[in-house]
Amino acid sequence: MADTFVVVGGDAAGMSAASKAKRDDPDLDVVVFERGEYVSYGACGLPYYVKGDIERLDDLVAVTPEEFREERDVDLRTGHEVVAIDREARRVTVEADGRTLEQPYDQLLVATGARATKPPVEGVDAEGVFTLRDMEAGGEIRSFVEETEPGTVGIVGGGYVGLEMAEAFDARGIDVHVFEMLPHVLQPFGEPVAEVVEEHLGEQGVTLHLDTPVSHLVTDAGRVVGVHAGGEETPVDFVLVGTGIRPNVELAAEAGIELGPTGAIAHDAYGRTNDERVFAAGDCAEATNLVTAEADYVPLALTANRHGRAIGQTVTGEPTEVGGMVGTAVVKVFDLEVARTGIIDGEEARDAGFDPVSATIRAESRAHYYPGGSPITIQLVGDGETGRLLGASMVGREGVAKRIDSVVTALHAGMTVAEVETLDLAYAPPFSPVWDPVLTAAKVLGGKLD
Amino acid sequence: MADTFVVVGGDAAGMSAASKAKRDDPDLDVVVFERGEYVSYGACGLPYYVKGDIERLDDLVAVTPEEFREERDVDLRTGHEVVAIDREARRVTVEADGRTLEQPYDQLLVATGARATKPPVEGVDAEGVFTLRDMEAGGEIRSFVEETEPGTVGIVGGGYVGLEMAEAFDARGIDVHVFEMLPHVLQPFGEPVAEVVEEHLGEQGVTLHLDTPVSHLVTDAGRVVGVHAGGEETPVDFVLVGTGIRPNVELAAEAGIELGPTGAIAHDAYGRTNDERVFAAGDCAEATNLVTAEADYVPLALTANRHGRAIGQTVTGEPTEVGGMVGTAVVKVFDLEVARTGIIDGEEARDAGFDPVSATIRAESRAHYYPGGSPITIQLVGDGETGRLLGASMVGREGVAKRIDSVVTALHAGMTVAEVETLDLAYAPPFSPVWDPVLTAAKVLGGKLD
Repeated sequence: MADTFVVVGGDAAGMSAASKAKRDDPDLDVVVFERGEYVSYGACGLPYYVKGDIERLDDLVAVTPEEFREERDVDLRTGHEVVAIDREARRVTVEADGRTLEQPYDQLLVATGARATKPPVEGVDAEGVFTLRDMEAGGEIRSFVEETEPGTVGIVGGGYVGLEMAEAFDARGIDVHVFEMLPHVLQPFGEPVAEVVEEHLGEQGVTLHLDTPVSHLVTDAGRVVGVHAGGEETPVDFVLVGTGIRPNVELAAEAGIELGPTGAIAHDAYGRTNDERVFAAGDCAEATNLVTAEADYVPLALTANRHGRAIGQTVTGEPTEVGGMVGTAVVKVFDLEVARTGIIDGEEARDAGFDPVSATIRAESRAHYYPGGSPITIQLVGDGETGRLLGASMVGREGVAKRIDSVVTALHAGMTVAEVETLDLAYAPPFSPVWDPVLTAAKVLGGKLD
Repeated sequence: MADTFVVVGGDAAGMSAASKAKRDDPDLDVVVFERGEYVSYGACGLPYYVKGDIERLDDLVAVTPEEFREERDVDLRTGHEVVAIDREARRVTVEADGRTLEQPYDQLLVATGARATKPPVEGVDAEGVFTLRDMEAGGEIRSFVEETEPGTVGIVGGGYVGLEMAEAFDARGIDVHVFEMLPHVLQPFGEPVAEVVEEHLGEQGVTLHLDTPVSHLVTDAGRVVGVHAGGEETPVDFVLVGTGIRPNVELAAEAGIELGPTGAIAHDAYGRTNDERVFAAGDCAEATNLVTAEADYVPLALTANRHGRAIGQTVTGEPTEVGGMVGTAVVKVFDLEVARTGIIDGEEARDAGFDPVSATIRAESRAHYYPGGSPITIQLVGDGETGRLLGASMVGREGVAKRIDSVVTALHAGMTVAEVETLDLAYAPPFSPVWDPVLTAAKVLGGKLD
């Protein structure tokens, strides 16, 4: 009898693993349980669906359930929720339509994803309070906005999702208030870059309430009508909570799968948990940060896809390391491109044993004489002891999203700041000054590291 | 008495060296001889001046002669041509305004640049035949175009300059014919990328004559009136020759400074020639290609600036390596960004001892559901024996110019194609698919290298 590979969760990690395993070993039985109706969807596109740039929710779907079933021969069961893992008996318990079934496995992948968190304040469960937790939620928010034509939104949290949604709501003519408990938006991007973003948000008409934790949401007859923060109440028609996500680890933890220091599921270089037949990948699992060489929790799409794919190979008998990451992220905030990679935060760097030295520069995106250029702000961080590059953050109207990738590659290679300064980066007047802003940043930081 | 550092040539390499040396050692006497009137100018911007995107020729000047003299305290003498170097006596002979003077040096930098070549065919010296050799020539071409309002131009050579000038002339309503003797334009970018560029040029209304060496230029009363190529005559109102440049090595060679295998001036890791008091940098000198670890001639702006700056440090007593390059170039061709780095050409790779394997992919510049994306074509080349990355070429309407930089950095680090596949490159729907096109290319090439 053929081996059975069971996958719990049908998004990026799960479907990548299932597809890859079935492609590499057509004899393998591959069964995927997904509790929702959508699989393999681009959750990162939801803000643009709400904004209206993307017409249909289905447009976000990369591969449909039918395609997985018919073209990729994966036994995909949507509307099926795995409620227990019996590692001794090697089977999972699944609930669907009120029925319960048992599915044996030879190898199992836990790819249960993550869920949006809500701050523990009064009113967060009222009507009119949304999170962008999944496709269904994206659909609800857009319907709500189109049907009720609200005038004002309170966004709780100034992270990626909060700011992407600020752009989406603003495009629909909604007055946007963002409440951030920290002194700056986009905490992982560092202060110099955040300040540029904040100025831009102000220019776009977004009202920022920084350093302002929400004390409670004001409700009326079970509906949210205001945000109470910093001693003041802002009347709103609805609220979007974007305060981060938490890994869905309960199913695994109850089965004795070990969690790591970050609270996400721990796994080895091949994505294996403490049970050699059980793998974990995607937003429920940790990943190795190559800068610190330690486990980290940075749940993003590329890591999920990559880990899933590697595990799909490993389960077919071709052991493949899942690989590490360096915490790269890029986000569009209105007209700005904002990107980061590696370790930027001083405290985080010191905790990892580094002696962080930082430099921030501002340079033009094009040759000084070429029209249409705009400033790029770059913060570059290096280790005072070894000279090693630790991370970077940057922001500008153009040429940022992919400019970060040279720094990403340098981090993977373990380059020093001095080595970055010698890179033969691309130059032509429409695209860069002769000294690319990354080189200028490395030169300035190098001067401080000497 | 203070030491004297003499620089021959006042463009990127020369002025970078002069400025850096004077800044680091204010006691050093720094004398620069430039035979023209302009120094430190952005020759790369000339096509955009001709196009009209840049209003005044002076806008291309980064630092004026007055600023060098007054703010940077460099003894800059424009209109002064160095005609001989006496290495025994350590002095140069200079001609200016019909006078001849002798200038002693303790250390000398030869930064004599390069000149535009012309093919050895009849008619190339006729009236109405231009090269874009320097600022003065840029001024002449724009004046000619504005004053005579020509209808048709023949461009000889489909390299960077030829195609940038095609865009410039087309923007002025001139009918453009490009004559290229090779089967494709942009030879250093490889065939797959060149084909995309050729299609785009056709869409823009440029007439390409590929595989069509010019046999002669047709003249009438000393003026060019046609291009004879491939057995046919194309009537033109003027001709722009962009068939490459040649290093100005005569001054150095006559003084016994050694040239390298490429025909440009040879120098060591610090930019020193065979005479320890004589340095060479910029478009007259070689540079080390880090992919082959051999001397190469890729005369581009960043290398000139970088080598000049390093030599400026070395002459003040802080020995600084000039660093290598990987042959990175990017060019805008109408609406396309076209970029390359490393070794792409199969023959060139084999000559350097590699076993080149190439893969070409086409991927989208944005997430599949995000509007406004466009295809990016990437050719990636690796070494079949070691799996090492050798080079890349890419083209697309957006996201190419700086996307090449991740490959550049990987080349500097000596990464394998398999390592490139693991890079944590930036992803967000407006800027990239989850798997960046570079990762997709590495995956496909990796499959061929296995």
